[in-house]
Parts: sequence; structure tokens; C-alpha cells
Amino acid sequence: MRPVLSDPLASVLLVDLTAPAAVLANATTEATRLLPGPALGGVLLTATGDGLALAVTDREHGLRLSRAALVHEDGEVLVALRPLAETVRALDAGQVRLTVEGSRLALRAPGARFGLPLLDRELHPGVPEPPPAAGSVPGSALRAAVEAVASAASREDALPIFTGLRLWTGDGTLTLLATDRYRMAMATLAWSGERLDLLAPAGVLSGLARRLGEGPVALGADSDRLGLRWDRDWLGTALLAVPFPDERARQLMRVEPSGVVELEADALAAAVRRATPFAGPRGTVTLSAWDGELRVHSSDPHGGESEQSVKASVSGAHGGFVYQARYLLDALRPFGGGSVRIEQQEGLRPTVFTGGPGEGVTLTYLVVPMRA
Amino acid sequence: MRPVLSDPLASVLLVDLTAPAAVLANATTEATRLLPGPALGGVLLTATGDGLALAVTDREHGLRLSRAALVHEDGEVLVALRPLAETVRALDAGQVRLTVEGSRLALRAPGARFGLPLLDRELHPGVPEPPPAAGSVPGSALRAAVEAVASAASREDALPIFTGLRLWTGDGTLTLLATDRYRMAMATLAWSGERLDLLAPAGVLSGLARRLGEGPVALGADSDRLGLRWDRDWLGTALLAVPFPDERARQLMRVEPSGVVELEADALAAAVRRATPFAGPRGTVTLSAWDGELRVHSSDPHGGESEQSVKASVSGAHGGFVYQARYLLDALRPFGGGSVRIEQQEGLRPTVFTGGPGEGVTLTYLVVPMRA
Repeated sequence: MRPVLSDPLASVLLVDLTAPAAVLANATTEATRLLPGPALGGVLLTATGDGLALAVTDREHGLRLSRAALVHEDGEVLVALRPLAETVRALDAGQVRLTVEGSRLALRAPGARFGLPLLDRELHPGVPEPPPAAGSVPGSALRAAVEAVASAASREDALPIFTGLRLWTGDGTLTLLATDRYRMAMATLAWSGERLDLLAPAGVLSGLARRLGEGPVALGADSDRLGLRWDRDWLGTALLAVPFPDERARQLMRVEPSGVVELEADALAAAVRRATPFAGPRGTVTLSAWDGELRVHSSDPHGGESEQSVKASVSGAHGGFVYQARYLLDALRPFGGGSVRIEQQEGLRPTVFTGGPGEGVTLTYLVVPMRA
Repeated sequence: MRPVLSDPLASVLLVDLTAPAAVLANATTEATRLLPGPALGGVLLTATGDGLALAVTDREHGLRLSRAALVHEDGEVLVALRPLAETVRALDAGQVRLTVEGSRLALRAPGARFGLPLLDRELHPGVPEPPPAAGSVPGSALRAAVEAVASAASREDALPIFTGLRLWTGDGTLTLLATDRYRMAMATLAWSGERLDLLAPAGVLSGLARRLGEGPVALGADSDRLGLRWDRDWLGTALLAVPFPDERARQLMRVEPSGVVELEADALAAAVRRATPFAGPRGTVTLSAWDGELRVHSSDPHGGESEQSVKASVSGAHGGFVYQARYLLDALRPFGGGSVRIEQQEGLRPTVFTGGPGEGVTLTYLVVPMRA
């Protein structure tokens, strides 16, 4: 992993630039939020004719953000990220000037000077550039796909396989899939680039997806890492080196519905939320389809009970199915603003949530029902 | 302490009323927020020709909120507060009907029924009505006075005396005072009622003050309790039965300034906030007055330093004074939107913050400087 920041010979401590305080505040805040761990060794600030680049790493992830700045003197310095972020965020000045003064990076605004100690660049692990792009997708489509799928991933690091986002290409499509064993989500979008086949940590991708705009996002991977590039910025993440149960996932996707319900996703989600105070120690609600309605029921031996009816189009045979309320809410969220099709299967085989294609993304969400 | 809810003979379990869901949501949320502890035994709902009253107690405090409702059948029931609050808050229905059905209080809205178990009224400690009013003050003035003064009270229950808000009347004024030994705040407003002289817990009054509107608030006390009444609602709180160091407080209020600075409170507060990342392990900033400016300085052996200048009108002699940054911010907040006069005294005698009268309240805030 080769550090790709500027040539060491050029890294004389001579940074001198002027930039809007708001631009610096936004970039340092982004760096704090997008990097899952604390920035190891600080933030590398690189001033060139292209402007200012901020680079951070927590060893597992590397992030570089490029911003316009009026550079008076090229150079590269290392300072602690948090005090830099706090300082520029609190400035009400329009412009702030960054210069190296002795052992300090000085931030100057009218009537104010802040001195941040320069850190030793030799102690910084470097921020490797991610693998080259294999293809790209619209930011809005990737955002919708990753947000929906990542909600089905586990947050427990004890079983890394279930914290992963499985990503592969084939037949002109890019597919994302995640599961924590109790639910599984799969999203498909159009793809015309080279082949990808990997398992990446869902958490960091979910954090990035939330902040993506409409513009294209390029994806690329090698055997160790996945890289995402958008605007003039990039993020690289180490892959999860564990085998994923692909065959089991494919089996689960073979659906034999015993009954089908179609209704407004938001109306059902609201009813499930209202049922939650009565969901008892297991946090469960029961869905049962009737003529023209889906009934949402919950009951707690001590806390009382709830019974609601949501207008629905119903076909096939239906019993009552019991679910974790929070899994239902996660499954319904990506279909918000539209209708959702719910296919229930016999026994404890998973229930399947699908919707119309939104943002160029086709989404399938599976939730395993519980014993009544 | 006599419970003042309706006549026990009338309390047959027969409540039946209709009220807007938003009104119930607002009232139950208020009850949850205004009562410092959990509602002991639940919330008493009393339906009469006057509408619906909600009463809760955590033993130290009693709260009663009255709301308009269409009452079909008078009565009184006891249910758990939190599930009631969560349920009515999540309803998107306009109106909700509350009726007693067997062992349940049923909440009905179109397509939905929620059943809350009725609790045993005999097990409820009762919610005593607070002492009669001694006089009243405008809600906005009380809000400004309590918010400013309560910020100087301690949150540590270990020394109850410093968690108190000292309140007394005399010479046509009502005075509120609090201190945690490191700072002290005093507010004075006009008063034409009977005599009051007490020490009440600052926390609950601060929580209530934040929610007060413009309307009058009546205050009354006996030897055990302070009561506040606003709109059709009331809150009672047990007094703190500990002696307060009145004489010491009076001495501190005798000010012999060595130098005076006057400046915009918000401008100084913003500078202190920007100095905070560099305030070091003790969290301190230094203020030093110069010709036409107040300099704000902070320095951390590892984290760097800050130096800012805020325009000020300066007179008298000035050295540098060191303060806890967060105490300065608390002291400046009540003067926000206007100018603040800062009188520094010799040595470690407290620095005095005063402003123009705002909202009919005269405010004095003392902060003890630290050794440099």
C-alpha cells in the first residue's frame, strides 16, 4: 500500500492558503463523520495548485477530500483533526488564512489567531489511494441501494460476515446484499463496468451513502480493498476476508408465496410504530390479512394491547404472522412514499417485501417471521 | 397532604370522553417532561364538565394539567403514563375517544383500538394541590429570571443546598439567587404579593420555566412546599429544608471594581467558545482588557493556543483574569442579544456580570476567577 500524497521532497512545511471558513468547516466535519474510527496521527493537509486536500485514515479506511482554496505556497502539514474541525466550525469569519509559523499551523481570521501544533509527518501511516475505477453508478441510486441493504446487516463485530455488504456484478447489473440471519436485503442496479465480486463492511458504506448527491460514484476494487470516488473525493476501505453464504442466500430468494398483500408502506410503518408500545418483552407484532385490510395486532401481558387495520389489496391464503417490530420498520423504510408488496410463505420461511423500481434500484427485503 | 382529586364516591370507573389526539399528545408529553422523576403509580385522568385533568407525582413533585375535552361521562381512572403518551403521540387521527372497557382504558381512533390496563387507584399516593397563591409575576419575566439563576446552581445532589434556588420577597421585589460556590446568580423582579422566603430545588423550576408563556404565573408557599400556577395548570414541589448562606451571599454582592469592561455578550461568548478547544485540561480561558478591546486567550501545552480580540469599552485597571470557559458561557448567556458590563475585582474576588434590565428582570452574575 503506497502512500499517494505528494512527493516527499516537496513536503517542506510551507503551506500558505486562504479558504472560506465554511468550506473548511464542511470538509473537516465530513472527514470526522465519514471516517469510522479516529483519524490516526491527524489530518494531512496538502496545498497545491489544485487547492487543498484533506486526507485521513483509521488504518482500515482512507479518505481524501479536495476543496477549492487560494494557495499562496504549496506544501503539506499534519495537524490533529478534531481541534481543527472545532475551530473552523466556530469561526464566523468569511475567509481564514492557514500558514505555517514555526511549530504551528496558524489559522488567522480578523481579530483572531489559532495555533495548532504541527505533528510529525514521519509518524503518519499514510493514506493509500484506492484501486482504480471499474465502473460507475448514479449517486442517488447507490444511496438508495446501500441505505436499504445496509439496514439488514448486523452491527455486531463478533460475526464479521454479517456486518458485510456483499457486492457483485453480472449480466449488466450490480447487486448488493446483506443479512444478519433474521432478515436479508438485496438491491440491484444497472452496471456497464468491469467485474466486481467482494464483501465490504456495511457500516462505512452506509455512512458515505447518506452523504452522496446525484453525481456519479465510481467503484473499483482489488483483492484487498474497495474504493469509491465522487466529485474530487475518494474513500477506500479494507475488504472483509471471509466467505459469504452465497448459495444459502440464493435459496432464500426462491419464493413460493401462500398469500400476497399490497399496501402503502408508510401507512403500515405508522401502524407498526403505534403497535410498538404494546409489543411486549419480545417486541413483536402480528400481521394478519383480511378482506381488503391488513390487521396489525400487538399484546403485552402487563402493558395492554393494540389492534389496527390498514387498507390493503389482499390475495391468497393468510394466517397471522409474527414479526419483530423493528425488523418490519427497517424492511418498510426503503419503500416509503410508495406501495409495498408483501409475500408471505408457509411456516417460518421468510416474508418477502418488494416494491416498484425506485431511483433505478430494484429492492427485495426478506424478514423471517417468529413463532407465535 | 390531602389528595385533591375528585370525590372518591364519584370516581366510578366510567370515563368517556373525546379529545383531539394532538391535545392529549401535548399534555402527556408535558407531564413526562415537567415531572423530574418517573410518575409514581401512573397518571390520574379525571373527566368532569371542565374537561380532562392529568395528574402525576414522583412524591417530591406534583403536577396537574387541565385540557379541554368533550366529556360524555365523568369519572377518574389511573393508567401508566409512558404508553399513554407514546400512543397518543403516534396517532395521526384528529380525534381520539377514551372509554373504560372492562379492565382497560380503550383509546379509539378510525381503524384502531389501543387498550391500556387500568391500575389500582388505591395504590396511588395522590397528587396534593399546592399552597394558595401569594402573588404573581409575568411568565416571561419568571422564565428569564429562573433560566439565568438556575444555571449557577449545582447539579450535584451530594450538597442539596447548592442545588437550591433561594427565593424571597421584600421592598416590592421578588429575588431569586443560586450558587454552586464557583459562581452565583441573582435576579430581581417586581412583586406586589404576600411574603415568600424559601429554598426550592432549581432543577424542576428550570424545567418549568423553559415552557412558560407570556401569561401570569402565581406563586405560593407553606412551610413544606412551593406551588406555581399558570393557565389552568399547577406544579408543586417540596422545599429544601436546609439553611442557605444568606450573609455570605450578601457580602459577595458588595462589589469594589478595579476595572470595568462593557461589550456585546454574544461576541464574547462566541470568542470563548472558539477558545475552548485550546482551553487545556483545566478548561480555562484568560480575559485581559486593553485599549478598546477585550483579549481572549487560551493555551494548551499539547493542543496549541488561541488569541482573539473583541471590541469593548474599557475603563480602570486590568490584569489578566483566568476563568473556567463553561462558567463564562453560563454567565454570558442571560445577557445574549445585548451588552454586558463586566466588573473585575482585585485578586480572586468574583467578577461581576450585569446588563440592562431585560423582560423586567435585573440580573447579576458572579464568577470566581482561578489562579493563573
